[in-house]
Amino acid sequence: MNRLYHFALSPYCRKVRLVLAEKRIEVELVEERYWDKEADFLRRNPAGKVPILKFGSRMMAESQAICEYLEETHPEPALMPKDPEARYEVRRLTAWFDDKFNEEVTTRLMTERLFKKLMGGGYPDSTMVKAGARAIKYHLDYMHYLLEQRRWLAGPELSLADFAAAAHLSCLDYISDVDWNRSETVKDWYAKIKSRPAFRSILADQVPGFPQPAHYADLDF
Amino acid sequence: MNRLYHFALSPYCRKVRLVLAEKRIEVELVEERYWDKEADFLRRNPAGKVPILKFGSRMMAESQAICEYLEETHPEPALMPKDPEARYEVRRLTAWFDDKFNEEVTTRLMTERLFKKLMGGGYPDSTMVKAGARAIKYHLDYMHYLLEQRRWLAGPELSLADFAAAAHLSCLDYISDVDWNRSETVKDWYAKIKSRPAFRSILADQVPGFPQPAHYADLDF
Repeated sequence: MNRLYHFALSPYCRKVRLVLAEKRIEVELVEERYWDKEADFLRRNPAGKVPILKFGSRMMAESQAICEYLEETHPEPALMPKDPEARYEVRRLTAWFDDKFNEEVTTRLMTERLFKKLMGGGYPDSTMVKAGARAIKYHLDYMHYLLEQRRWLAGPELSLADFAAAAHLSCLDYISDVDWNRSETVKDWYAKIKSRPAFRSILADQVPGFPQPAHYADLDF
Repeated sequence: MNRLYHFALSPYCRKVRLVLAEKRIEVELVEERYWDKEADFLRRNPAGKVPILKFGSRMMAESQAICEYLEETHPEPALMPKDPEARYEVRRLTAWFDDKFNEEVTTRLMTERLFKKLMGGGYPDSTMVKAGARAIKYHLDYMHYLLEQRRWLAGPELSLADFAAAAHLSCLDYISDVDWNRSETVKDWYAKIKSRPAFRSILADQVPGFPQPAHYADLDF
């Protein structure tokens, strides 16, 4: 049985979960509190990170390398276009969310408001929280700008870029840090993603000590 | 004319330069002191990062998306194998260097010993320098372990993973922070990369205020 070692509120794990679910690849989810770094987990993954995908007899790390692999070995339904220019745009935006958005928004808000409490790291630093809350506005405006010209973030078809973005935003939505009133266009996009069958397991996530807010799993949020 | 906006000691710029040179794609190099963020540069690149590749009429950002695009549009000579499992390994290792190695080694040593001086940010923090100097040993040992089993880092053929690794190591070598005596195997690998025509422009780099050490461009270092 394929197995994904993950943490529910890791956007990189969520991206891989979405790709697996969209492609109907069955996988058993195993929650890893990866910061505890217990010996068994470190043996599986010397980098000490999640996600780790046990796929057949392979242990695979690095979310983007995993997603590209799944796309190449399970091409249907496609999450990458065929044309190199369009593929570039998918990869550029995936990197935008996984690097820039993560650094400016996800890390600041999630670390301060969730991980510090989970890991016992003290009180949130309000300067960081404010910086994250300021930065997310700019990113939502960028998404609005893209989605005014395109049906999905990277072009006319749903792609890995949408899943990368939704993975980050859904984690932040779990701690009620996304202002969905900022753009009707972005909200419509998220409503479309949220109602996909692939998203169901993510809407069912529960993190002990952090109850789901009511709007989180609501398709009419 | 194609143009690459870059900074000489950015590993991400070097990775793209190596791919361009290996594929014999001509490009004019334009040095950007990107931290000055002058208005013209930010217009070209709202993310405020290098490299930016002006390719035909397109402006392209994100080094990995650029490299994958170049591989798809200029497949010869190949820097990615054909088999999905082997491609996964190339992408995993590329991400290893661009994320993990960068965070644990490159950023610590380059920021403290070079960028702080260039950008006027004060004295190096010796705790960070020591942590970086400690971490590079572990990474060199990991490379040694891989290269004992394989001709190149990700398999039997030169790939993007070798260029990613060499891009980081060559930046650190410019500030004499690589102990080439740690592994004969790794040193041999670097000597092979260093003697490729694609590496020439990187060996000619000069950063004002930081003269090249004698061994840096020497093929018998």
